[in-house]
Amino acid sequence: MPKTPLRGNALVIQSGGPTAVINQSLAGIMSAAGDYTDVIANVFGAVHGLHGLLHENFWNLSHEAPFTWQDIANSPGAALGSARIKPKSTDLERIFKVFTAHNVKFLLYNGGNDSAEAAQLIRAEANNRNYEIQILHVPKTIDNDLMVTDHCPGYGSVAKVVSHIVAGDDLDNRSFYNGIKINVCMGRHAGWIAAATALAQKGLAGNQDPELAAPHLIYLPETPFTEQKFLDDVQNCYDKIGRVTLVVAEGLADVINNHKFAGETDEFGNAQLSGSGGLGDYLSSLVKQKLKVKSSLGKLRVRSDTWGYLQRCLPSMTSPTDQAEAFWVGAMAVRYLMQGESDKMVTLVRNMTGGYHCETGLCDLTLVAQKTKLMPKSMINSTYNGVTQEFLDYVAPLAATLPITRWIQGHSVNKKLEMFARLD
Amino acid sequence: MPKTPLRGNALVIQSGGPTAVINQSLAGIMSAAGDYTDVIANVFGAVHGLHGLLHENFWNLSHEAPFTWQDIANSPGAALGSARIKPKSTDLERIFKVFTAHNVKFLLYNGGNDSAEAAQLIRAEANNRNYEIQILHVPKTIDNDLMVTDHCPGYGSVAKVVSHIVAGDDLDNRSFYNGIKINVCMGRHAGWIAAATALAQKGLAGNQDPELAAPHLIYLPETPFTEQKFLDDVQNCYDKIGRVTLVVAEGLADVINNHKFAGETDEFGNAQLSGSGGLGDYLSSLVKQKLKVKSSLGKLRVRSDTWGYLQRCLPSMTSPTDQAEAFWVGAMAVRYLMQGESDKMVTLVRNMTGGYHCETGLCDLTLVAQKTKLMPKSMINSTYNGVTQEFLDYVAPLAATLPITRWIQGHSVNKKLEMFARLD
Repeated sequence: MPKTPLRGNALVIQSGGPTAVINQSLAGIMSAAGDYTDVIANVFGAVHGLHGLLHENFWNLSHEAPFTWQDIANSPGAALGSARIKPKSTDLERIFKVFTAHNVKFLLYNGGNDSAEAAQLIRAEANNRNYEIQILHVPKTIDNDLMVTDHCPGYGSVAKVVSHIVAGDDLDNRSFYNGIKINVCMGRHAGWIAAATALAQKGLAGNQDPELAAPHLIYLPETPFTEQKFLDDVQNCYDKIGRVTLVVAEGLADVINNHKFAGETDEFGNAQLSGSGGLGDYLSSLVKQKLKVKSSLGKLRVRSDTWGYLQRCLPSMTSPTDQAEAFWVGAMAVRYLMQGESDKMVTLVRNMTGGYHCETGLCDLTLVAQKTKLMPKSMINSTYNGVTQEFLDYVAPLAATLPITRWIQGHSVNKKLEMFARLD
Repeated sequence: MPKTPLRGNALVIQSGGPTAVINQSLAGIMSAAGDYTDVIANVFGAVHGLHGLLHENFWNLSHEAPFTWQDIANSPGAALGSARIKPKSTDLERIFKVFTAHNVKFLLYNGGNDSAEAAQLIRAEANNRNYEIQILHVPKTIDNDLMVTDHCPGYGSVAKVVSHIVAGDDLDNRSFYNGIKINVCMGRHAGWIAAATALAQKGLAGNQDPELAAPHLIYLPETPFTEQKFLDDVQNCYDKIGRVTLVVAEGLADVINNHKFAGETDEFGNAQLSGSGGLGDYLSSLVKQKLKVKSSLGKLRVRSDTWGYLQRCLPSMTSPTDQAEAFWVGAMAVRYLMQGESDKMVTLVRNMTGGYHCETGLCDLTLVAQKTKLMPKSMINSTYNGVTQEFLDYVAPLAATLPITRWIQGHSVNKKLEMFARLD
């Protein structure tokens, strides 16, 4: 039975790292809120998340020109401005002064597990103060590490970006003899993004030998990592196919050399990993020093790239499925508020009847806050350097299709001369 | 008057760094060669460029299944395998033994100014030996630094990729307060790639203040660079709009600290710049240490990304114009051979009658070999940190259109409370 919703203004907060589709959720909220103007008088956006809430910096989103929402939705980045702080106990009184002054009765917190925790803190204080407010958490993270939900809006697009990058990168690497290419992607605790690069293995058409398809090795934060095991893997792969295109999650920096590559630390205690080429450069040096080259042609070519922020904000590479689902969880959050729901996160529930589609659901915030969903063992291969078919079946519908690429078959011309000596 | 072509086999060499469309030129060669099988018996591909020629490693490309060429053409990377060596004097005898053994009468050298030099060396030796051969150079380089031709196949696609990256990256940066984002792109001597990011300024819809559009600063190898000027520019931009999204060409590493960030050196004497995050990390540290933050919100957020190889090999971001032109210069090279032409490079000649299109032409190899076309002064702004409208008019038709992005207009809600103290 639907409960009766409160009446008043709604406040939307975008928090944490942006995604390519976070504004889709905002557009979904605005679209659905337009159906309930008798209950939700205005939708406010907190400018820069909790900063905006504390400093009373709100935009009245109901005053935006309606025709602009489609373009805003298609834009990466957090259009309200994001923040990476959480409420201190001394902030709570202020927050409720602001809620009271602006008659905020609905709070839509769009973020990850840190945001779910912030929503819980605000809920507890509301109970202390007997302030009536409905709070829903709208999931968002490229890391795909929220509990309960099948996957997180934002993940499908980054999965598409990284798999396309690897599909092209391996052909570039393959252009040279003796190529070892190390790629560092996002993902601190969970390897979902690194794992998604495995989709690139399916993009190479007419590939007689599936072992040739990149990425050849994938290293995830969930599995044990030693430099010796890494070097052995690279050597074995190189000896077998003459090149290696591999992917490591940036979280490996936490494992190797005790945070040697980490930069600043944010308020949640997380060291900055992105925005630095340190891990890639380190692994590149390691391979250059230790790998034994058996080829007769030229010296070992070792390169590393750290893909950085473009993974989450490349506008023309967004997954259409991800866009649609991000819009939908925003719109459904408003619908759930109108049914009187509160203190929950909107979830995506996979239903494979008749092919992939998702429905939405709800789960308690307590199941999500401060928790991290790591990749299950069943999705990681037994040698800790790749994924299983179960993972590929999971991720394929979330990303978009790969471009078809093809290499030359190669019909060798019979040699007619003696060998030639130059070997560089 | 068309001259009479020789008769025999053709050899194709792909040389230097691959592009997203180098295989389009190969497909163009194969397509056109199919019309002249009475003159060109077989088209051979040298596997890994000059290595393949010296070691007699050829593929007979005429035996590839015709239906595969479209997929090969759409694949980034050099499908024949590339190389970064040039012929030594001791190699020349061998090269002509191989030509004789395989009846090579047509050489198609697909590469940059180093390849044009290699083609010249081979021509000189052919004259010494009275070996009849027709040689044409097919232009290819993401760097866009070949003389005479209006632009180089490969450049339009990288221009598209980097402008899309910046369009999204600035919205990501804008999500945070106090953001300084440093991006390092390819380009050693010439700034054509860095300059192309300026296209992103046109993608932001409904942007009332053009000064807000990124990239806010662009640094090119063609102009003087000092750390103090750089810091002053960043400070001024930051003070004006509260964030900075900037682009530097990797060639700046050659200017700053005397090659401090350079890695290996190739046979042409060029130090490796890509595949390392060194320059970005250095500039990031510099800004963190020196920039004076005036904002009341939080500490300065400085991040750097080095885009790396994906700039030249992202399969789904190729410019359709670049694809078509790359195919065409390959096909026209064969047509020119059939007209008896030799010792020339195929050029693109811009004709703006009735809108942008290009015709092909020919120029002497001597005008191209070992020369680098830098950006002219008329395309660089007077403060050495951006481009002019002349450059934007030049580059726009080569890249594809940008995605439309849009930020929230922002209708501020009136404040009702006193100021709040928390300022982080």
